[in-house]
Amino acid sequence: MADNIRVGIIGASGYVGGELLRILLNHHSVRVTVVTSKQYKDDPVYRVHPNLRSMSDLRFTEPQVDNLVSECDFVFTSVPHGSAVKIIPALLETDMKIVDMSADYRLKDPVAYEHWYKFSHPQSDLLRSTVFGIPELYSEEIKRAKFVSNPGCMAITSILALAPFAKARVIDLYHIVVDAKIGSSGGGTKPTTGTHHAERYGVMRPYKPVDHRHTAEIEQEISILAGVDVKISMTPHAMNMVRGILCTIHCFTKEKVTTPEVWKILREFYRNAPFVRFVKDKKGIARYPDPKILSGSNYCDIGFEIDDRMNRLLLLSATDNLMKGAAGNAVQCMNLMLGFDERQGLEFPGLHPV
Amino acid sequence: MADNIRVGIIGASGYVGGELLRILLNHHSVRVTVVTSKQYKDDPVYRVHPNLRSMSDLRFTEPQVDNLVSECDFVFTSVPHGSAVKIIPALLETDMKIVDMSADYRLKDPVAYEHWYKFSHPQSDLLRSTVFGIPELYSEEIKRAKFVSNPGCMAITSILALAPFAKARVIDLYHIVVDAKIGSSGGGTKPTTGTHHAERYGVMRPYKPVDHRHTAEIEQEISILAGVDVKISMTPHAMNMVRGILCTIHCFTKEKVTTPEVWKILREFYRNAPFVRFVKDKKGIARYPDPKILSGSNYCDIGFEIDDRMNRLLLLSATDNLMKGAAGNAVQCMNLMLGFDERQGLEFPGLHPV
Amino acid sequence: MADNIRVGIIGASGYVGGELLRILLNHHSVRVTVVTSKQYKDDPVYRVHPNLRSMSDLRFTEPQVDNLVSECDFVFTSVPHGSAVKIIPALLETDMKIVDMSADYRLKDPVAYEHWYKFSHPQSDLLRSTVFGIPELYSEEIKRAKFVSNPGCMAITSILALAPFAKARVIDLYHIVVDAKIGSSGGGTKPTTGTHHAERYGVMRPYKPVDHRHTAEIEQEISILAGVDVKISMTPHAMNMVRGILCTIHCFTKEKVTTPEVWKILREFYRNAPFVRFVKDKKGIARYPDPKILSGSNYCDIGFEIDDRMNRLLLLSATDNLMKGAAGNAVQCMNLMLGFDERQGLEFPGLHPV
Amino acid sequence: MADNIRVGIIGASGYVGGELLRILLNHHSVRVTVVTSKQYKDDPVYRVHPNLRSMSDLRFTEPQVDNLVSECDFVFTSVPHGSAVKIIPALLETDMKIVDMSADYRLKDPVAYEHWYKFSHPQSDLLRSTVFGIPELYSEEIKRAKFVSNPGCMAITSILALAPFAKARVIDLYHIVVDAKIGSSGGGTKPTTGTHHAERYGVMRPYKPVDHRHTAEIEQEISILAGVDVKISMTPHAMNMVRGILCTIHCFTKEKVTTPEVWKILREFYRNAPFVRFVKDKKGIARYPDPKILSGSNYCDIGFEIDDRMNRLLLLSATDNLMKGAAGNAVQCMNLMLGFDERQGLEFPGLHPV
Repeated sequence: MADNIRVGIIGASGYVGGELLRILLNHHSVRVTVVTSKQYKDDPVYRVHPNLRSMSDLRFTEPQVDNLVSECDFVFTSVPHGSAVKIIPALLETDMKIVDMSADYRLKDPVAYEHWYKFSHPQSDLLRSTVFGIPELYSEEIKRAKFVSNPGCMAITSILALAPFAKARVIDLYHIVVDAKIGSSGGGTKPTTGTHHAERYGVMRPYKPVDHRHTAEIEQEISILAGVDVKISMTPHAMNMVRGILCTIHCFTKEKVTTPEVWKILREFYRNAPFVRFVKDKKGIARYPDPKILSGSNYCDIGFEIDDRMNRLLLLSATDNLMKGAAGNAVQCMNLMLGFDERQGLEFPGLHPV
Repeated sequence: MADNIRVGIIGASGYVGGELLRILLNHHSVRVTVVTSKQYKDDPVYRVHPNLRSMSDLRFTEPQVDNLVSECDFVFTSVPHGSAVKIIPALLETDMKIVDMSADYRLKDPVAYEHWYKFSHPQSDLLRSTVFGIPELYSEEIKRAKFVSNPGCMAITSILALAPFAKARVIDLYHIVVDAKIGSSGGGTKPTTGTHHAERYGVMRPYKPVDHRHTAEIEQEISILAGVDVKISMTPHAMNMVRGILCTIHCFTKEKVTTPEVWKILREFYRNAPFVRFVKDKKGIARYPDPKILSGSNYCDIGFEIDDRMNRLLLLSATDNLMKGAAGNAVQCMNLMLGFDERQGLEFPGLHPV
Repeated sequence: MADNIRVGIIGASGYVGGELLRILLNHHSVRVTVVTSKQYKDDPVYRVHPNLRSMSDLRFTEPQVDNLVSECDFVFTSVPHGSAVKIIPALLETDMKIVDMSADYRLKDPVAYEHWYKFSHPQSDLLRSTVFGIPELYSEEIKRAKFVSNPGCMAITSILALAPFAKARVIDLYHIVVDAKIGSSGGGTKPTTGTHHAERYGVMRPYKPVDHRHTAEIEQEISILAGVDVKISMTPHAMNMVRGILCTIHCFTKEKVTTPEVWKILREFYRNAPFVRFVKDKKGIARYPDPKILSGSNYCDIGFEIDDRMNRLLLLSATDNLMKGAAGNAVQCMNLMLGFDERQGLEFPGLHPV
Repeated sequence: MADNIRVGIIGASGYVGGELLRILLNHHSVRVTVVTSKQYKDDPVYRVHPNLRSMSDLRFTEPQVDNLVSECDFVFTSVPHGSAVKIIPALLETDMKIVDMSADYRLKDPVAYEHWYKFSHPQSDLLRSTVFGIPELYSEEIKRAKFVSNPGCMAITSILALAPFAKARVIDLYHIVVDAKIGSSGGGTKPTTGTHHAERYGVMRPYKPVDHRHTAEIEQEISILAGVDVKISMTPHAMNMVRGILCTIHCFTKEKVTTPEVWKILREFYRNAPFVRFVKDKKGIARYPDPKILSGSNYCDIGFEIDDRMNRLLLLSATDNLMKGAAGNAVQCMNLMLGFDERQGLEFPGLHPV
């Protein structure tokens, strides 16, 4: 039967939780049965996610593992960093499959949590066995996984652009600069002076310009692909939009590379990646990746340019931070874990103009 | 068979044409076979509509009636006002069903074209037989129609809010004020000084503040519903967004009306209208209609408030001008004309936040 | 000597306080000596108002009447509604002149405070003697005043458009519709879910669409000018910008009026009003008032259009809500109260494009 | 007498010309006598620059050198690249002093024009004698100059951040990455599909991501300061705002540098630079440079962060591209050339919030 897989979302009142809910309500092979939120207990979901008005009668409930077990076959945990470690072990003892949206299981190395999160990880064994949820890199592992950790939004956007070139070893691994630009939804739902519209509108504001935590995920994955320890220079910026990430990645090549060589590296790496598109056109207004047209879509658009004067390979990647950067990618993982077509529920192509 | 209806879009490089294409590419019962554009002849559609990259291999062709007849069962004409009258008669002689997106067949009265469009209409008989494409008003006529004229974006948004109250005759029909706010996509694709980003960004700019042409459509429909000749005071404003219309409609009631009375009028009128939602909440941030969350969706959200001091009934309606205000509504008409479920292809609920 | 007038700002960490400070730091005839803020006590002003970095070494202090008396000749009170009544009486006993930015002294009628503010006003005598700070209406009274109450931002923007026509008695006083659009700075500095950038960006959101408190000020002033009791239908909307108000005022005329008649009424009323401009052009992109170009300027731009079909006189007025809508107007009052040129410190014309 | 210097602006209908006009109309020591525009001949300036309504009765005239000589003592040329070379030689034969806003005289090396502008420069001698108009670098030369070439907007913003460190030789001069973000006014007044609001709104769009012409100016100046030939990796991006530049400059240091060392380098270099501010705070929302608050101001805000893991020195600089990036800087040059206080006419501090 079509909708026999029952899905729960723990922490469904945040932006990622809401986006998971939107996707899953229109997914033909699953049925959302439980959405939890302490803050909005008993409220209908459309009060918090007004786009879902008339789409669903669900109401938020208090999270309780017992209920989840009896009502769900699959669960997404979308709770704050540091909270997932408190609930994941109990969930792993049930029959449910799980995708965790937090940062708590993204890094393999427990020492890295101490450095980046000032946090002594209580389950270091679990870190090593957790599958990192990038379908373009770990498709087979995800298909077999019971538990997947979904990557950070700027991390996956950067990794997808860098991965083919790290693997091909054509770039100088010691001078990789990731200059990221991101919309306000990436910061979550909590109002602060810094997110107040009058203060946040129209900014081009660096935030956490050194030591941003997503750096750790990028370094982990690029190091694996390159086969050596790689460190990355990453600086994110808050920009005047709600959704969207653009990563401008400045790499230097060891030797001159040509456009056909770059195309070849990209095409071979992404032979079977339905959500990676190459964007590089000579005409028209969409010659490079731009998150403007990606809102609601699960694509990661990748482009490049070669700066011959500098031996610089400029990589560009764009995503919707709540989709390929979070909920969309997580549903793509779920589809693989449940044996569905990878693309199910993720067909929306994005709007133009918007 | 699922996709046996072949559809053509004449004028597919504009914003409405692009939105029709986006919807129809994901519609399970039709297949787009022809997209025409003189300006972009031979270009792939994704060069003009970058959100469709990897969704379609279609290329624009020159419009030719002969080709259309052999390749299409249904056609949308999305050409400038004044151009549709030149092609519709020939199309009507074929077996194809047609929805026209222009203003050329919206008004029943040929004299009205002279007043509002400074245009002597060459096909006055056709005007009278054309079905005005508002499914919430003319569902049965649309189901039987060979030819439907799709309404103007601000017209349908206003009409859907006013219709129940015009029919119920509770409002003063001589002091109806429609204060409309609209995004830049409503103005089409042609770059001008007024649409140049540096000039257009951040505006709150009245445009055509008296005698806007959509007024004629509203007056026509509200007069039919009320049974008397009604004139409307309408003023649109260009606002700092790309998609979206909010109509703030200030009505005065003959006698005091109560909230339950208003609810009753709305609910009875829209008993079977899957794309009309009522938005009026006491809590949360989405207490009134707001086009922010409607981008890409086909909903018309309707709300109200009663101003007891003034005997004023404030009506609020919001749409995505390219969806319920244009392409979405046209596909809804097509669904009815072809005997499909009215909602097919129009399931996208809109995004939050965005 | 140029800067011998010493000025204090009570409540200088809000947006209005910050704008007062910006203007006064560049005002050649005054010197800011005291800026108070409980929340930001001891912080340099540039931490809260980053545009003032390097402009001033002032730091916020706790508000204390004793200090003010010894350090100030003139004081602006910019405290929340309901708080001004607690400090104004003590200030009035000093030699200082005062402009109050709150709503606490705007209405003449104590009963009106009960209706609009649910507040029993403790100083009804003071209400009657307070001068309402609209220089275009009360220039002479302001020049002689010790105490002036500055109007609400949407109130002054509406009143300046309506005043000439209310006085000329050409409009139907019982069907005046004020449809106001305002930026986010009008809501103050407090972060809430509704002001969170991801939620507030891109909205067209009615707020307090009936019974907005500024209605009371408009009714008070228009009634005085018209000589009869007038009630107003007002609906404000939150728009996607930080600064700026556009009031679209739909009036109906008793008889047909002509464009020259309207011009005559406007020109006679505003013969000596340096900050009122008429904006109505047949060419170019700036044919109507638009707050886009008013940020930082003290102008109120007024335009109109006649809708002959409806006997409708459409009035348009635009301001920067923090300038002519608040701090700029207050400094204009101060200039009059201190015998300076009305325009001093208010010369900034606004930017284009911006 | 105050306003005895008569100033002309050749090409006054563009954004830079309009900004020059705005500044000079409020400058106490000059008087604008001639503003030229072929396209808008005879139009009043406020039709094109609506912020200047009621500020000036000037009308655009056709540019003619004879008129300029008799009516002006000083002239700004704000014409397209490639056009200045046609008029500057004739102007240099008059008594007028000149600031040229185009790119035609920014580079010292005629060969560089061939590489970057595909343009064989007809006046290579003049290139060498032209003073490059960065007051923070060439104050004495500008004071003595008859002719100054004003730098490009992204060039000056980058140079001001890099200069102290290039001179101090603490950075690796072969891996300097300038990731620039700029508003739409930087692209001028000409409407195109790419600048059409519906297409341009909400973008994060790289443009000319390699080989941008401003790179040449940065390389020229940084090479002079460093004493060796430097090449720069620069990538600009079009962002969703009208004014403003943020340059995020990723440098690598040869050895570890400390925060006090960086402060010392900055403070010593900019001891007498009234328009350079250092922005680096531990509290508040304005911890780093952000062009949001710079609109209309002539500041260049500079900040930094040290990334110890990478030996990366992150430099941040922000300007209003039409002010310190163009017209404001040019007036600063004029002030020096005419012996005025450098800051005259440039006192506006920018707005907050906006």
